[in-house]
Amino acid sequence: MLVTYDVSTLQDDSQKRLRRIAQACNGYGQRVQKSVFECSVSDVELEELINKLLKIMDKEQDSLRIYRLREPKDKFIRHYGVQTVVNLDEPLII
Amino acid sequence: MLVTYDVSTLQDDSQKRLRRIAQACNGYGQRVQKSVFECSVSDVELEELINKLLKIMDKEQDSLRIYRLREPKDKFIRHYGVQTVVNLDEPLII
Repeated sequence: MLVTYDVSTLQDDSQKRLRRIAQACNGYGQRVQKSVFECSVSDVELEELINKLLKIMDKEQDSLRIYRLREPKDKFIRHYGVQTVVNLDEPLII
Repeated sequence: MLVTYDVSTLQDDSQKRLRRIAQACNGYGQRVQKSVFECSVSDVELEELINKLLKIMDKEQDSLRIYRLREPKDKFIRHYGVQTVVNLDEPLII
């Protein structure tokens, strides 16, 4: 599963939402880009994650997309450039 | 095909790279989030797009990921929140 999100930066709590969304996703998979996580989850875990994210995000401002990926995952992914390994405790500047 | 990218914001030409990458992707598909495009492309067009992106991006700083999506695409995508339709001519602030 691929989780991608955009969090609007216009609200006071934007950075907090961004950090909480990343932390929630981090519990289910691996961050591969600033706002992109690859998650190996069961259907039950997926619904659990989505419910958590829906509680955090501002549905009027933010965007969340979930893609069910083709398996075996690595066969259908190509990557170029740096591998982003982001420390969630550091302030996230995008 | 899903194209996701992270462009480092630390260089002087970061915003220019970001804009040029988005414009290149825009020629092959639809922007669904700030740094996420869904592209319906042939294998030849995909290689063409990747070559263009590799010339624009800074491989030491930026990250580009290409996912071959499951078809029919809409059956395997879930979306929550706003649909981002971004005007490429406006300055992109992330």
